[in-house]
Amino acid sequence: MANVKLAVIFYSMGGTNYQLAQWAAEGARETGAEVKVLKVEELAPQSVIEGNEVWKNTVEATKDVPVVTSADVEWADAIIFSVPTRFGNMPSQMKQFLDTQGGLWATGKTVNKVVSAMTSAQNPHGGQEATLLSLYTSMMHWGAIIATPGYTDPVLFGAGGNPYGTSVTVGQDGKMIEDVQAAVKHQAKRTVTVAEWVKKGQQ
Amino acid sequence: MANVKLAVIFYSMGGTNYQLAQWAAEGARETGAEVKVLKVEELAPQSVIEGNEVWKNTVEATKDVPVVTSADVEWADAIIFSVPTRFGNMPSQMKQFLDTQGGLWATGKTVNKVVSAMTSAQNPHGGQEATLLSLYTSMMHWGAIIATPGYTDPVLFGAGGNPYGTSVTVGQDGKMIEDVQAAVKHQAKRTVTVAEWVKKGQQ
Amino acid sequence: MANVKLAVIFYSMGGTNYQLAQWAAEGARETGAEVKVLKVEELAPQSVIEGNEVWKNTVEATKDVPVVTSADVEWADAIIFSVPTRFGNMPSQMKQFLDTQGGLWATGKTVNKVVSAMTSAQNPHGGQEATLLSLYTSMMHWGAIIATPGYTDPVLFGAGGNPYGTSVTVGQDGKMIEDVQAAVKHQAKRTVTVAEWVKKGQQ
Amino acid sequence: MANVKLAVIFYSMGGTNYQLAQWAAEGARETGAEVKVLKVEELAPQSVIEGNEVWKNTVEATKDVPVVTSADVEWADAIIFSVPTRFGNMPSQMKQFLDTQGGLWATGKTVNKVVSAMTSAQNPHGGQEATLLSLYTSMMHWGAIIATPGYTDPVLFGAGGNPYGTSVTVGQDGKMIEDVQAAVKHQAKRTVTVAEWVKKGQQ
Repeated sequence: MANVKLAVIFYSMGGTNYQLAQWAAEGARETGAEVKVLKVEELAPQSVIEGNEVWKNTVEATKDVPVVTSADVEWADAIIFSVPTRFGNMPSQMKQFLDTQGGLWATGKTVNKVVSAMTSAQNPHGGQEATLLSLYTSMMHWGAIIATPGYTDPVLFGAGGNPYGTSVTVGQDGKMIEDVQAAVKHQAKRTVTVAEWVKKGQQ
Repeated sequence: MANVKLAVIFYSMGGTNYQLAQWAAEGARETGAEVKVLKVEELAPQSVIEGNEVWKNTVEATKDVPVVTSADVEWADAIIFSVPTRFGNMPSQMKQFLDTQGGLWATGKTVNKVVSAMTSAQNPHGGQEATLLSLYTSMMHWGAIIATPGYTDPVLFGAGGNPYGTSVTVGQDGKMIEDVQAAVKHQAKRTVTVAEWVKKGQQ
Repeated sequence: MANVKLAVIFYSMGGTNYQLAQWAAEGARETGAEVKVLKVEELAPQSVIEGNEVWKNTVEATKDVPVVTSADVEWADAIIFSVPTRFGNMPSQMKQFLDTQGGLWATGKTVNKVVSAMTSAQNPHGGQEATLLSLYTSMMHWGAIIATPGYTDPVLFGAGGNPYGTSVTVGQDGKMIEDVQAAVKHQAKRTVTVAEWVKKGQQ
Repeated sequence: MANVKLAVIFYSMGGTNYQLAQWAAEGARETGAEVKVLKVEELAPQSVIEGNEVWKNTVEATKDVPVVTSADVEWADAIIFSVPTRFGNMPSQMKQFLDTQGGLWATGKTVNKVVSAMTSAQNPHGGQEATLLSLYTSMMHWGAIIATPGYTDPVLFGAGGNPYGTSVTVGQDGKMIEDVQAAVKHQAKRTVTVAEWVKKGQQ
């Protein structure tokens, strides 16, 4: 799958979705895919971030991660999104990125991207499913091809069995409760594999 | 709240949702509400049920529970639904019940019922959120008033923090993994309380 | 695309979704796909159907259409669903069919089916979007690959521009209001095309 | 209903949702409610707005409309949201507003607000339903009480029969295609009426 190009696009405030993004990149690279890990632009003012130790640390830890652009979406054969839930929907930062891709969308350049998504929340049922589904609804507008994990591998059951994408619960201490690394890697491989089929088919 | 009439309408194959329904009834009765616990009609053939020990036991355990009718919906000020997830949506048995209420709906008799819902699944993220949301979408067609638990009580966090309604994971042994009894009772009280406001307001 | 096998699975009470299914079959056959048009089992009692002239006529018109089975799902590389909306969700008849595919699902035989869906309603915004999305949520549980029309062809704008799948409004007289034939055929071709990519990729 | 406080919160780029918001305010005021019409903060840079005549005109036309704050949410008994669809979901501007209400939410001050929503799109099925449903999912996290129009008045059928909230199609010329004014007013009255019941009940 050396010729599949994957963009892993994340928003992370506490570090969890950056970690998920890195695991996805790792899993995809093991298949030979070319991977870019990319963050969406922050909307919060610097002063608010400064006042929150965890957030500040995440901004610092991701300071060398490039901000995603339309050119990255155009470049990609496959996209994996990774975002925390915000009231059962993607965060505004990710929504803002999607909303500003209208130009790309209007010229048909979002069509046939193979996509899947990952998420995190502080409660086990705190909007994980709804957040993933919100991303897929938007992707249908893009003409993307949606390939979620479903129950395609036993490793998914250990990670909570979310068929819409890997989701993880984050404890009060900011640490992930379930061990989802293997599930993330499986999801990344599946996304890249389907993208390879789609890419070859289009050639 | 002596004058609020609550219908708890469930479908249960393994007993979990019958148990949730009974807890909801208990919680509602503690507020003084008049409660009916009602099952929806089974669609599976008797022969299939006979071949499944757990299912057969549930059918036996619920044999004296009345089958819900349009008259029950008309009677109710409030409705709590309780169903297992089936591929991220309510089971066909519950859908069949809703679908056959077209006559009641067409005469405006589903309007202003105060509703909430509960669910169960075998995986922690096995469609709990999506199933609850599927019920609410249909309820918007009915002109119902939707009052989910949200995060209106600390007891909800212990039950998994599902803001759309109480949800529980059922293990391989058929037993509930989280302790959701207090969350169910809170949800029932909230549903009845909002129904009381709506009922008084309409008088 | 001679080797792609497409199952068009519909439920129709008034004839609209049977018509949509036939157009989809036509569009798919033009690409060389092998197509089966299949109905789901009726749940309504014969007496109710007899009392409704339109419904009776549809049952009569579709009496030679085979009832879909698990073997058809297993056979298919691609599936197009076509259903009327029922309170913003698929009808119980279709849900019952999906729910009874648990055996197939448990053995992984629903994985990688390429799917899309079509729908109808009596109001322009009477649940068309929500109904299509309800089918896709279930398909994610199946591990299916979802390829909706998006805005992949200008013909879709004339049909109402529903990116989730072709949808049509049915007037009081039972006739379709928008002209969606070309959109249906485009959708069928897109579904088959993606299925061909996936099928070849898996070989 | 003199004592019901309604916040109509909108985002508008082309003027449609500002118009819907004004009609909602008008309908609510006819019932005696106290109404604030409020816009969410813009996220687009001034230079982008300047380059778009229609957008610039809307910003100019709404320059005296106050930007909504947490204090407005706290003040309100009822909220009506009005937003254009952006890829089947609310625009990032509205999402950003919701996301930044975490402080209010954490102190329970979003509970029992009575809410409904309105939307617009350029295609008749361009995400109207999905956008409204995305708002309600978030509102369930807030512990809000959702009172959509359903089919509670014949006027709704003329406006497209969207049970989740009034939705309108905007033509290439920027003008609304359906006549939804009466439907908007009905929705506003229903939202205020249910809010009055809830408010009285809580006293």
